[in-house]
Amino acid sequence: MKKLELHPDRLFSSDPAQRALARALYATVKDLPIVSPHGHTDPRWYADNEPFGNASALFITPDHYVFRMLYSQGVRLEDLGIPRRDGSRVEQDPRKIWRSFASHYHVFRGTPTRIWLDHAFHEVFGDRLFDRINECLALPAFRPRALFERFNIEVIATTESPLDPLVHHAKLRDSGWKGRVVTAYRPDPVVDPEFEGFRANVTRLGEITGEDTTAWQGYLAAHRQRRAFFKTMGATSTDHGHPTALTCDLTARESEVLFAKVLTGAASSGDAEVFRGQMLTEMARMSLDDALVMQIHPGSFRNHNPVILERFGRDHGADIPTRTDYVRALKPLLDRFGNERSLTLILFTLDESVYARELAPLAGHYPILRLGPPWWFHDSPEGMLRFRAQATETAGFYNTVGFNDDTRAFLSIPARHDVARRIDCRFLAQLVAEHRVEEDEAFELAPELAYGLAKRAYRL
Amino acid sequence: MKKLELHPDRLFSSDPAQRALARALYATVKDLPIVSPHGHTDPRWYADNEPFGNASALFITPDHYVFRMLYSQGVRLEDLGIPRRDGSRVEQDPRKIWRSFASHYHVFRGTPTRIWLDHAFHEVFGDRLFDRINECLALPAFRPRALFERFNIEVIATTESPLDPLVHHAKLRDSGWKGRVVTAYRPDPVVDPEFEGFRANVTRLGEITGEDTTAWQGYLAAHRQRRAFFKTMGATSTDHGHPTALTCDLTARESEVLFAKVLTGAASSGDAEVFRGQMLTEMARMSLDDALVMQIHPGSFRNHNPVILERFGRDHGADIPTRTDYVRALKPLLDRFGNERSLTLILFTLDESVYARELAPLAGHYPILRLGPPWWFHDSPEGMLRFRAQATETAGFYNTVGFNDDTRAFLSIPARHDVARRIDCRFLAQLVAEHRVEEDEAFELAPELAYGLAKRAYRL
Amino acid sequence: MKKLELHPDRLFSSDPAQRALARALYATVKDLPIVSPHGHTDPRWYADNEPFGNASALFITPDHYVFRMLYSQGVRLEDLGIPRRDGSRVEQDPRKIWRSFASHYHVFRGTPTRIWLDHAFHEVFGDRLFDRINECLALPAFRPRALFERFNIEVIATTESPLDPLVHHAKLRDSGWKGRVVTAYRPDPVVDPEFEGFRANVTRLGEITGEDTTAWQGYLAAHRQRRAFFKTMGATSTDHGHPTALTCDLTARESEVLFAKVLTGAASSGDAEVFRGQMLTEMARMSLDDALVMQIHPGSFRNHNPVILERFGRDHGADIPTRTDYVRALKPLLDRFGNERSLTLILFTLDESVYARELAPLAGHYPILRLGPPWWFHDSPEGMLRFRAQATETAGFYNTVGFNDDTRAFLSIPARHDVARRIDCRFLAQLVAEHRVEEDEAFELAPELAYGLAKRAYRL
Repeated sequence: MKKLELHPDRLFSSDPAQRALARALYATVKDLPIVSPHGHTDPRWYADNEPFGNASALFITPDHYVFRMLYSQGVRLEDLGIPRRDGSRVEQDPRKIWRSFASHYHVFRGTPTRIWLDHAFHEVFGDRLFDRINECLALPAFRPRALFERFNIEVIATTESPLDPLVHHAKLRDSGWKGRVVTAYRPDPVVDPEFEGFRANVTRLGEITGEDTTAWQGYLAAHRQRRAFFKTMGATSTDHGHPTALTCDLTARESEVLFAKVLTGAASSGDAEVFRGQMLTEMARMSLDDALVMQIHPGSFRNHNPVILERFGRDHGADIPTRTDYVRALKPLLDRFGNERSLTLILFTLDESVYARELAPLAGHYPILRLGPPWWFHDSPEGMLRFRAQATETAGFYNTVGFNDDTRAFLSIPARHDVARRIDCRFLAQLVAEHRVEEDEAFELAPELAYGLAKRAYRL
Repeated sequence: MKKLELHPDRLFSSDPAQRALARALYATVKDLPIVSPHGHTDPRWYADNEPFGNASALFITPDHYVFRMLYSQGVRLEDLGIPRRDGSRVEQDPRKIWRSFASHYHVFRGTPTRIWLDHAFHEVFGDRLFDRINECLALPAFRPRALFERFNIEVIATTESPLDPLVHHAKLRDSGWKGRVVTAYRPDPVVDPEFEGFRANVTRLGEITGEDTTAWQGYLAAHRQRRAFFKTMGATSTDHGHPTALTCDLTARESEVLFAKVLTGAASSGDAEVFRGQMLTEMARMSLDDALVMQIHPGSFRNHNPVILERFGRDHGADIPTRTDYVRALKPLLDRFGNERSLTLILFTLDESVYARELAPLAGHYPILRLGPPWWFHDSPEGMLRFRAQATETAGFYNTVGFNDDTRAFLSIPARHDVARRIDCRFLAQLVAEHRVEEDEAFELAPELAYGLAKRAYRL
Repeated sequence: MKKLELHPDRLFSSDPAQRALARALYATVKDLPIVSPHGHTDPRWYADNEPFGNASALFITPDHYVFRMLYSQGVRLEDLGIPRRDGSRVEQDPRKIWRSFASHYHVFRGTPTRIWLDHAFHEVFGDRLFDRINECLALPAFRPRALFERFNIEVIATTESPLDPLVHHAKLRDSGWKGRVVTAYRPDPVVDPEFEGFRANVTRLGEITGEDTTAWQGYLAAHRQRRAFFKTMGATSTDHGHPTALTCDLTARESEVLFAKVLTGAASSGDAEVFRGQMLTEMARMSLDDALVMQIHPGSFRNHNPVILERFGRDHGADIPTRTDYVRALKPLLDRFGNERSLTLILFTLDESVYARELAPLAGHYPILRLGPPWWFHDSPEGMLRFRAQATETAGFYNTVGFNDDTRAFLSIPARHDVARRIDCRFLAQLVAEHRVEEDEAFELAPELAYGLAKRAYRL
């Protein structure tokens, strides 16, 4: 298990002129606080501040980036200690799991996972050995809040369902700890008729809110109420993970009828798609009132591998991107609200072919639109360079929103932000070296890309 | 409002070996005359040779690249003096409009618009101040013909509808001025059943030509007559801006029936699409007779924002590219005429994913096909580099046609050609530095890309 | 006809740091034997070891890369000596053909064809003159087996139909010559209902095998038998050239019914597509038993130009790539066999937009999947760089399979492998120079990419 040295010039161009500029730009942003406006860390960590378990439980078992790659190379998920839904035996010895991981470490060469892991080994633990990491994890300095502070996180957003009581956020609010952890409203479980348990979820939403969620107006009122509650726990944004970017703009009467149908469970796949699309437009309408920033993360084919889904459940590394249309899909919502200057809708994609063709032209016109950073598989050095090279000329820098880590892997957060800052400085250095922006402009842009744009776009 | 210095090495690679080569190549092409085979400048400018108004009227109000970006950042179009269709008040003070623009100048960082504007401020006016530009505009040296000559334009094509009487071109022809301004035949208003006023336009076409445009054969004859007339005004090309690249090859009888249907106004959207597709094939047939070079510009979703369309009209920055197929779409036309060595059909795209996958393989086989340069949103340094990197290996250089500025922004023309020349020299310098072409070949190719290919492909 | 000098640093970055690293890496792989696991050379060459004819017959007439480009520039195929199906006269004088080619040599500037040709002229003949090449071809040292040995080919795979008796392979096996030439099983002629002569081919398959190929089970048994026979001639792989990547997973009963239908000749285009898709799944099932590695080459629109097809027949340079979906298309096969650790399915594409979006995520998850190298139009320096830049971060290096030359142009084989080795070393050098992999890791990876991965993935 060869560990990558963290060279101070890593990820910069090797062209000396560009490298010197990138280094100078990076020096001005590397110590800026981390603003993490969208992610999936567990608020319980910060609320309870219990030690993380062991190296394997921290780095391998919960990280689908890590185990998907090992699985692709023939390692059984059982041997990595991934729990099976049927309760049958999987590897329990974290040392054996670590050994299996370490013996395959070369397969991560050239991947961002490798960069994140090595960054954590170097910067956080100073080592990559199982025992040494475990020793650290037992220390107070390695508890979640201590790491949060050491990582210089100014604010981090978690992502919760409307059904979540947000008890960890409440506990945090009452704890006196100064770390800022906010929630975000992710209503997929009560908005997507194809989400497992959808109907029960809508019923539960009614119970929580006291609204009649068997009726369209009551259902909408329940959303409004939960959004307001999420705002009391710091939420400044909503997030929507849909198969496509389809939006709809039905009449109230049509929406009522469709809602009744999806509640019966008899809705077709097409009905479900239209309902999700309508709900995006409804969420935009609510955002006009309560100022929550909207995010759409479309285009993932979830749980592509039925064997993995059946054995291990959702979110086990078998989500695959698909071709995604934005131009026609977003039109109903944009026709209705695209010109509202007080609304912000941040678009993400897993389909890079739309950067220059669709997303940058849309964001370079509509006042409500901003472009989210490269997402998921594209949250990588080459992915970030492609985003800047393909989106900037048409959308500019100021229609983008800085970086999102979007991760549940807490230890990777400083590494991911560091990669983003390095790559943005590299990109700016290239523009300066090629006389496409002035040096003083690059020095103005660098902290905007690292910090300012995220903070303002997400109203943090 | 920070102005970019025009560094002599701008847009070249910062690698010293490549830069030196690019500089040497560029030195041989920078002073070549501009051949502008396709664009949208107003022939009235050259015919009447009146002074341009003021800086805002020249740079901001007519340029949808400029105001779309400002609009995306929350600036109201009314505050930029864009006239509303309902006649309600918009900003009239050009100085206030300029101030609004100048205070947002940073949002153009990293965009080609910024490069074009700074080029004009430096090279044409020597300044970026509103008053100073206005002082210049009042001088004889800044009238359209003087600028045309100063820009070293050898020939420029404008683009007119078949219904246009071409009075400005006639006036120019009779004026004795030596500047060469030619028209191009753009029949969309009488070819696209979904164009506003289509039926009236076809009627008008009949009146102008004396042909019976209520019948298919008369309608075709009217086209032939107008094409011949356009040729007398210098036209060497036609241009077709269609939603898709679909072509059709109906029988004469099917065409007749379809034409009758579209004239009733009862045609479906599918009928309209087929009719446009059939007309591309008809235009190719006519080009075989009259030698006009064909251009197809497909794939723009026009007027995507209905609010903007209603308030300000067409062409106000809300055209968004869409995914575009060429392989199946062009087949009917290619089946019929693809092997004609005397016909030239130049293809453009807003969908860069087709460069390597579809366009270069098609152009690397069919004798009639040539690839137009990066268009619209892709007429930019990165866009041009992607085009060369993705198209050259399969299509070669000699199936491309040099550069088109395709602009109505007269002041941007020298800047755009300069960017294209710099980027092409940069690309060639890279090939030489990597020993992929020989240096003497690059010196042969550079003037071809800057001048020769355009002149020959467009038969100018 | 300007010949490119073969600079020792060709195709490396011109950045001095990267170039020095690339040079050092390349020095370790340039003399490794060639493993050519997939291609289209003629086994008769090696079996009979007759001299190649003349320069034109070797380089021009059989190479659709060469003549498609000349054709696109207006050269008639008849003038290049391409035989017409109607037997009408074409140019017979190889010297005239060569002259026509030489006078258009500049149109290949910037193309990989140019690189391959110049490599052969330099390295194999030391000259580019027609007479000098012909003199060489008459010498024993230029016969196929001598060139095979000189090219340092360790093993080469040819590609044959199940109907091929493999007499040349048998002759080779019995010849005592030590060169290793293996076949590969390409069943398209008996699997694709739209292949010309499909029904007769299936009948012939029955005659050859003694199986009842009028029945589904007999037809499958005939495949099994031929696969076993191909294995005796060294086959380690199958290959499937389908219009799309569609796979299906019908029941045995449904398959029987569909097979009966396609045998009647009454099958629709949709039926044919499903049948091909089902056969991919059947082939996977057989591979589980006989361990042949599967390859899918989808997405080519074959014989796009009907004039060329009619006059000259199949495979004359008019095959055009199309947009290709993998995520939904492969799901039926993956649902059934995607998690089998003993099966290998190598995916190719002509649609580069899927590298980062679909193929790398799929290969970075499913144990059976590996990514084939850039194919056909994308087998080029820029194509290879795009593949590595877009696939590596998500799939890693170890889910790729080294290089395939996939060619019928024997003389281009060392050139193609040399390009691949240079570009891979260049890519690795960039990663090292940017501190994304360690130098010792790059020295481990280089021979894997040049040799080891291909040998292991293809079980050679």
